[in-house]
Amino acid sequence: MKTNLTFGVIGAGAIGGYYGAMLARADNEVHFLARNDAVEMNRKGIEVLSPNGNFAVSPVSAHPTWDTMPPCDVVIVAVKSTANDDVFARVSKVVKPAGVVLLIQNGIGAEVSLAAHLPPSVEIIGGLAFISAEKTGPTEFSHYDYGAVTLGVFAPDYSAAQPDSRMVALVEALTGAGIATQVSDNLLEARWQKLVWNIPFNTLSVILDATTAELIGHPSTYQLAQTMMAEVMAAAAADGCELPADLPVGMLTATKAMKPYSTSMKVDFNAGRPLEFEAIAGGALARARATDTPMPTLAAIYRQLAFVDSRIRGF
Amino acid sequence: MKTNLTFGVIGAGAIGGYYGAMLARADNEVHFLARNDAVEMNRKGIEVLSPNGNFAVSPVSAHPTWDTMPPCDVVIVAVKSTANDDVFARVSKVVKPAGVVLLIQNGIGAEVSLAAHLPPSVEIIGGLAFISAEKTGPTEFSHYDYGAVTLGVFAPDYSAAQPDSRMVALVEALTGAGIATQVSDNLLEARWQKLVWNIPFNTLSVILDATTAELIGHPSTYQLAQTMMAEVMAAAAADGCELPADLPVGMLTATKAMKPYSTSMKVDFNAGRPLEFEAIAGGALARARATDTPMPTLAAIYRQLAFVDSRIRGF
Repeated sequence: MKTNLTFGVIGAGAIGGYYGAMLARADNEVHFLARNDAVEMNRKGIEVLSPNGNFAVSPVSAHPTWDTMPPCDVVIVAVKSTANDDVFARVSKVVKPAGVVLLIQNGIGAEVSLAAHLPPSVEIIGGLAFISAEKTGPTEFSHYDYGAVTLGVFAPDYSAAQPDSRMVALVEALTGAGIATQVSDNLLEARWQKLVWNIPFNTLSVILDATTAELIGHPSTYQLAQTMMAEVMAAAAADGCELPADLPVGMLTATKAMKPYSTSMKVDFNAGRPLEFEAIAGGALARARATDTPMPTLAAIYRQLAFVDSRIRGF
Repeated sequence: MKTNLTFGVIGAGAIGGYYGAMLARADNEVHFLARNDAVEMNRKGIEVLSPNGNFAVSPVSAHPTWDTMPPCDVVIVAVKSTANDDVFARVSKVVKPAGVVLLIQNGIGAEVSLAAHLPPSVEIIGGLAFISAEKTGPTEFSHYDYGAVTLGVFAPDYSAAQPDSRMVALVEALTGAGIATQVSDNLLEARWQKLVWNIPFNTLSVILDATTAELIGHPSTYQLAQTMMAEVMAAAAADGCELPADLPVGMLTATKAMKPYSTSMKVDFNAGRPLEFEAIAGGALARARATDTPMPTLAAIYRQLAFVDSRIRGF
């Protein structure tokens, strides 16, 4: 279902490639910023391999630099948070004055930095993707499982914010493109909630070079995940987000039932890419510090990740 | 310098091999229990490669089983703590009624278990080795650096204990064999003191697959080591051992000046051997629990080690 919104997608990795392709398949106007693969994408189009059915999109509009990107109604920022400094400094040039920047990333706190780079007329929507996908070639995106997104309007200091007309239009576009979309009126809570899972499993999968199944299957790492989840729950509560008390046990049970899963940080680690440890662990620690909430386990693991990340970056 | 003491050495790894060879070179009667390499040792003797000068000892008395070991005045237990259950159950058969069992191991708490297996007439002396050495062949021991031992009489519940005549005779024998020997009247304090260094560097070197130089050279792992040292200092103080406040900074500075060093746990890890994480991390945590002293960082890293150890053991 075509909408009258135009989309810019910053970053054609697994997230940007998959959601951009879904939107384009539904006849929306989509422009990709794809530094390395734009030429190939323009030449061959893009392909999505998915258990829901493979599909191709052709032609596509892909740009190797910011200069040729047209201003769009909705700009989906889908780069790794490690590229945020660079992207946030430029994104205002590619969004219309009354447009939306949708930030689909893990972690907590990035919207605050993003807001400092945008005029107040631009709405920021935070997005959380629940998806298992990977870029498997310059123009090929493999979707393995899941795919839903949760969206929340960002208001200053993450205060609660009701969905407005721009959010409604965006949800219509996403839903119309076959993307299961939920809306939260509390983006901060949605981010904390996702961190309850992401913090133990992303970090430990890298430090211990393990799948979710291995981590959940060993009593020591199961307990360690529980401890970390309890720290995140306490930090969230101190930050004004009282999450359901049975959330951790529910997540642990669900994870036990999942097939072995490589977390996004583990996928980055395996590919030798910088780790999103600042957005995920550092962001949580920063907000916990602001409320004087101790997170001693995460603080230790954050430092381990900083060491591993330096080794990946080669310094 | 020959003494009138006879020595049994349980375990012919780096520690037992090196110290046993030093004692044998000084004409002491030394009997090795060497499960795998006794035949080869009896056939070829043993060789120590050392910057202080290589030397060979031949003939040696090595035994593949406990059955032929003669009762000795001093039995040096120099197995990895992971073998303690098995060794402690048998050691009383190879020590004379008024003899000494010298336990040279890392960690804290093992003497308590050992005491339960020995008649009260046998004295337990705890030993801490400050040495860089490795077994590099069935009959070859490579000594790289250092070599001193600290000894302390074990009294029930690690209460302070003055050196007695048996300790004096043992120190004479070790010193006479060229082994720099210090005596502590507070074994518990000596064990805690060594843990201030061993806990951060042994554990992190395995979890992060790193040398001491890498750990000390990165600000995040430097800070993490500081945090862990502070936890050990607090647990030691609560356990009645007030260590000098400048001990951690002194150790960190000394470690910075050391050449890159593979900790004993890292050597075990690289060789695919079980990790001494129960003796080192578990022992400290158990004593901290008894005094209600939180060690949240070590608790997390203990669980990471338990996971890594299970992977090494293949279950």
